[in-house]
Amino acid sequence: MAAAAPPPPPSDVPEPHMAPLETTPIGHPMFTRIRLATPLDVPFIHKLIHQMAVFEKLTHLFSATESSLSSTLFLSPPFQSFTIFLLEVSSSPIPPLLSPSPSFTPIEKTFNFDLPLNDLEKDAFSVHYGSDQVVIAGFVLFFPNYSTFLGKPGFYVEDLFVRECYRRKGFGKMLLSAVAKQAVKMGYGRVEWVVLDWNVNAIKFYEQMGAQVLPEWRICRLTGDSLQAYQNANA
Amino acid sequence: MAAAAPPPPPSDVPEPHMAPLETTPIGHPMFTRIRLATPLDVPFIHKLIHQMAVFEKLTHLFSATESSLSSTLFLSPPFQSFTIFLLEVSSSPIPPLLSPSPSFTPIEKTFNFDLPLNDLEKDAFSVHYGSDQVVIAGFVLFFPNYSTFLGKPGFYVEDLFVRECYRRKGFGKMLLSAVAKQAVKMGYGRVEWVVLDWNVNAIKFYEQMGAQVLPEWRICRLTGDSLQAYQNANA
Repeated sequence: MAAAAPPPPPSDVPEPHMAPLETTPIGHPMFTRIRLATPLDVPFIHKLIHQMAVFEKLTHLFSATESSLSSTLFLSPPFQSFTIFLLEVSSSPIPPLLSPSPSFTPIEKTFNFDLPLNDLEKDAFSVHYGSDQVVIAGFVLFFPNYSTFLGKPGFYVEDLFVRECYRRKGFGKMLLSAVAKQAVKMGYGRVEWVVLDWNVNAIKFYEQMGAQVLPEWRICRLTGDSLQAYQNANA
Repeated sequence: MAAAAPPPPPSDVPEPHMAPLETTPIGHPMFTRIRLATPLDVPFIHKLIHQMAVFEKLTHLFSATESSLSSTLFLSPPFQSFTIFLLEVSSSPIPPLLSPSPSFTPIEKTFNFDLPLNDLEKDAFSVHYGSDQVVIAGFVLFFPNYSTFLGKPGFYVEDLFVRECYRRKGFGKMLLSAVAKQAVKMGYGRVEWVVLDWNVNAIKFYEQMGAQVLPEWRICRLTGDSLQAYQNANA
């Protein structure tokens, strides 16, 4: 399905949900869609998080299981608590969702690349819609935070991850923009996330997207035994 | 009601919710309680946040109103979204709540101070329980966050504030400990917050409470016009 042998352009399959390409595509079209994740996506989410831990050389801190994710995610309606957008890609137009969420209209965008993308892991990240197959290329996990100074909520982006073969194509920007757009739609005041101070490329990218990097704040974390010690604290 | 003319110890008013002092108090007893805030507390919360903005010399960033707080807080059950603990203090035993939340049992602690505390603003922060009057001394606002590596939620502490005349008495620790205790009770993996890097006293205090300060992470913030620019973003 991937770009090694791209199918013809989709002119013979009118898809009301997908605007036709304005010109005959040259090269390798890639149809993309951002949609809400559902409980059925947990196996993909688990694999994506694990890949992120490998990328960050932090597998020693990785202890999430499909079970721990299933029991803690999807307990609230979208955007009210932990929320995940998935990025789906396909070399063919992506069929509409059978059960779209009333909370979010998927964001679709068609790219056209000079070179084919060779996804060696596509089988492990494939979603089947009837006879159609699309591939999960990345995700963003975010949840509401709150600014008391503004007196309004915002979104905090915990994770933004694009699988290796899909990087440097604008997909990270697409996922983060989707969160920002949702924040504006909901009247929220901020979107925040964190970056490692030595990751100058990421910082440059975020600044180009309009973000400020706050130099003075440091994260404090109470976890593990130090947190458990408060179990019987009489404050 | 404050400590200028402290009442006698409460031996003549047995309060089943409040363990009697084990020894006859010497000095100035202070009864304290941490309870969940309710929509009726919004005027206090607004004043507390404003005092925090004054303390941090950040009033130019303060735009919250009682109305914006009322319309964005208390929309979810406690701990599922933005949650506020208030610290109440009194020189007399604090009467039990008429409508206690099933989600949280108030935390009570009695202090005994050598010197009276003179709260010049007590009228502005007084809560009346029948003929009893207690004073709001501080608050903590927190909400769930999520660690994908742990595959479980935590709490993020957005604000921790104790009014000036009540500082350096252990009340900040009491409020933060209450959040940590609640996190342990819920099986959560972390409690996190931020601190300014030059605030060495705060950093020392947090480290003594068991927190690690993460040196490498920086906060990125998309807000104002830079955020609004995403309103019509096609990702």
